[in-house]
Amino acid sequence: MIQRNTTLQLLARRLLATKPQHAINQASLVQEIAARQKLFITDPISPGSIFFLPNGTKIFNKLIQFMKLQQQQLLFQYNEVITPLIYKKSLWEKSGHWDNYQDDMFKVDGTDVSKETYGLKPMNCPGHCVMFNRFDHSYQELPIRYTDFSPLHRNEASGALSGLTRLRKFHQDDGHIFCSKEQIESEIINCLKLIDLCYNQVFKLNKTSGAKSGYSINLSTRPTDHYIGDIQVWNHAEDVLKSILEKLDKPWQLNEGDGAFYGPKLDIMVPDHNGKFYQVATIQLDFQLPQRFDLKFKNKNNKYEMPIMIHRAVFGSIERFMALLIEHYEGKWPFWLNPCQAMIIPIKTDDTKQVEQCRRLRQRLSGEINEKDTEILKPVPFNNHKFNVDIDERSESVGYRIKDALFKDYSYLIIVGENEAATNTFSVRTREDRTVHNLTEDQIYHKFCNIERNYE
Amino acid sequence: MIQRNTTLQLLARRLLATKPQHAINQASLVQEIAARQKLFITDPISPGSIFFLPNGTKIFNKLIQFMKLQQQQLLFQYNEVITPLIYKKSLWEKSGHWDNYQDDMFKVDGTDVSKETYGLKPMNCPGHCVMFNRFDHSYQELPIRYTDFSPLHRNEASGALSGLTRLRKFHQDDGHIFCSKEQIESEIINCLKLIDLCYNQVFKLNKTSGAKSGYSINLSTRPTDHYIGDIQVWNHAEDVLKSILEKLDKPWQLNEGDGAFYGPKLDIMVPDHNGKFYQVATIQLDFQLPQRFDLKFKNKNNKYEMPIMIHRAVFGSIERFMALLIEHYEGKWPFWLNPCQAMIIPIKTDDTKQVEQCRRLRQRLSGEINEKDTEILKPVPFNNHKFNVDIDERSESVGYRIKDALFKDYSYLIIVGENEAATNTFSVRTREDRTVHNLTEDQIYHKFCNIERNYE
Repeated sequence: MIQRNTTLQLLARRLLATKPQHAINQASLVQEIAARQKLFITDPISPGSIFFLPNGTKIFNKLIQFMKLQQQQLLFQYNEVITPLIYKKSLWEKSGHWDNYQDDMFKVDGTDVSKETYGLKPMNCPGHCVMFNRFDHSYQELPIRYTDFSPLHRNEASGALSGLTRLRKFHQDDGHIFCSKEQIESEIINCLKLIDLCYNQVFKLNKTSGAKSGYSINLSTRPTDHYIGDIQVWNHAEDVLKSILEKLDKPWQLNEGDGAFYGPKLDIMVPDHNGKFYQVATIQLDFQLPQRFDLKFKNKNNKYEMPIMIHRAVFGSIERFMALLIEHYEGKWPFWLNPCQAMIIPIKTDDTKQVEQCRRLRQRLSGEINEKDTEILKPVPFNNHKFNVDIDERSESVGYRIKDALFKDYSYLIIVGENEAATNTFSVRTREDRTVHNLTEDQIYHKFCNIERNYE
Repeated sequence: MIQRNTTLQLLARRLLATKPQHAINQASLVQEIAARQKLFITDPISPGSIFFLPNGTKIFNKLIQFMKLQQQQLLFQYNEVITPLIYKKSLWEKSGHWDNYQDDMFKVDGTDVSKETYGLKPMNCPGHCVMFNRFDHSYQELPIRYTDFSPLHRNEASGALSGLTRLRKFHQDDGHIFCSKEQIESEIINCLKLIDLCYNQVFKLNKTSGAKSGYSINLSTRPTDHYIGDIQVWNHAEDVLKSILEKLDKPWQLNEGDGAFYGPKLDIMVPDHNGKFYQVATIQLDFQLPQRFDLKFKNKNNKYEMPIMIHRAVFGSIERFMALLIEHYEGKWPFWLNPCQAMIIPIKTDDTKQVEQCRRLRQRLSGEINEKDTEILKPVPFNNHKFNVDIDERSESVGYRIKDALFKDYSYLIIVGENEAATNTFSVRTREDRTVHNLTEDQIYHKFCNIERNYE
């Protein structure tokens, strides 16, 4: 389970006290782009829960698809699971949430014979422990790594709610690793590799800050109140994390007292344009929950041993990560993430040949295979490339329609006039560069496939 | 919003009264296959909610991926959205759920200043109405079609819970179409086309029953109690559905009094092996919610007009559909859906050459791109084919390992012995057919891509 960083609140308050425009700027930039691109809305009928509109949903889904692909790699080998959202109070008592996290949880009224209250899950870990416990495990199966994209709910005070960064309903690219003591180090190193892959290689957050790495690391230690377990165990876990950081020669800061109630953690912090830091990824070392849930595996000597749990998330809250990306790209989404990948514009909207050529291209790029009047449909093949392509057939001037497509941040503009219709080609330009390239349908399709495959 | 079919309960009771083994057989077959293939578990800590294990999650995700691909086609053009799970009571009062559906809903305690109770959503429609209402709409945008794969919760009595077919937490491939009166007919025809594509073309449920169609249609009309709106409006809606069915010359039965509380519906019924019918897909015509939510669009004459809502699901409950598929295939999943697509077996597990050749194939088929010790990782490309492939390197006899892989229902067995290692090829056979084909790595990869693309 992954807790929100309360230091961030303190940090935010401190920043707000000195430079009140900071947080407001980030939030208002995100709001403005979200409105222009129709990404999401909120409504007082469900405060702190996002209504993702079709464009926002496309980005959200692409991020998850990206993460699933990376996590399944042999090097990481996460297995996705889908777990319940409501659990009886007794589970939360066992996990320690009822004593330490109750105020942040939504309670659900059950009508079971037992009349037991349910808790709407704020974290996935207890559910994953139930799953792990159902089977006998041998040391040969370890590490077992579950990943889960469930919606989570935390009962934040309404005053604390803010844009996409502090919500009551959000999703994590959550994961729990059950491993032996000997595997802790290599698992944490792999978590950091995945974080590097994501932040530096693909999203290139290091490019903004100009630093070698796009993030910094906090080591958050045992809270003064609200923690479970023995202090020696805590000290040991903190030492393990420290020694890994030192071994890897990663720069880090101490963030005293800000660990989760069940263990210390490494928090990955990413700055926004104003230098305000947000917690995104996290890696948490937990000796406590395995004990509370009596987790075990059979070791080489055929004796039962307790596994260690590592809680980790790479994006952290997907909603919060989206907010950072909206700000990072200032709405200029890279092609692969863009809900508006290409706008096709026929110069003469009353010229059937031009319009038809545009529609054929759209059909090809959208991965369509059925004509409108087909009697028996064929299924769209699995793993088909499908691009987000629109046609602007409005009888407005070409200049107006180009301007409008640029305003909506389309990555590519594709124009068909007399010349193009005569040669059955297309004039293609990017959002950033007015240079026009003359391409065939096939060339455009393969160009797009290539760009998308490489996360550009 | 899509209600469960209460007639099914009656039907089930009737069937149980005459042939008690029916329901038990279906449920126990599903349970047995789920245990053997490690698809899912349940736990009293959350009755009626499924814990999908990695294999079950793979099937669940493939079904959703399939449906998203089909729905996005130009012919259907659904736009996926992601909406909140909890809404204040006032929303449910407006929609009529509070009066007509309250007993089936879980209540959530809020701590807002208003102290208003929340309802955990049993259906997506009110949330979609909130979304539709946020924007001005012109007739040119209609039909607007939202699709949503949110988890839904219904507070079923614990005695009614059964396997995957009656749950408290489940998912639908839910969709709502907002259209003008003139568009009702073509929209419903398209819904039926999508249902045909799914049930007859891809899952070939017609092949089992031997009938031309794998399903039958019920027209469910106004309930005697618990309905909203005027009887004339109901009669009109029922007539519209009847006339479409007659026009299409589809066979159907009348199911009096079993409509949703807001409108009549077409329920698609699929039989299990014992002839027991389950409701899966549904198409519901709704003149009531648009009125309650005051939905409107600007028509050609620049006047406000009320749209009609069509609630529809193709799988219906994805969990229930999975139960039907488990039974339909008897655990012999087609390749594209199989969580166990291929097992690779080196004949001599102490022969490095054979083992290495197996591992290279696994890496290729799993879509791996990074070596274990790579310093800087490359991201796995978007839209990469990734197959579920395992190696059995246990020092058991080949015969034992083949038998074990067949027991686990792997679609393909790939064997490497001395001959294969010498020629760098693989001996490939299917689950059903002992005939062995000698193939290269490339040939296997392209064969698999082809089979998966075509849903075989």
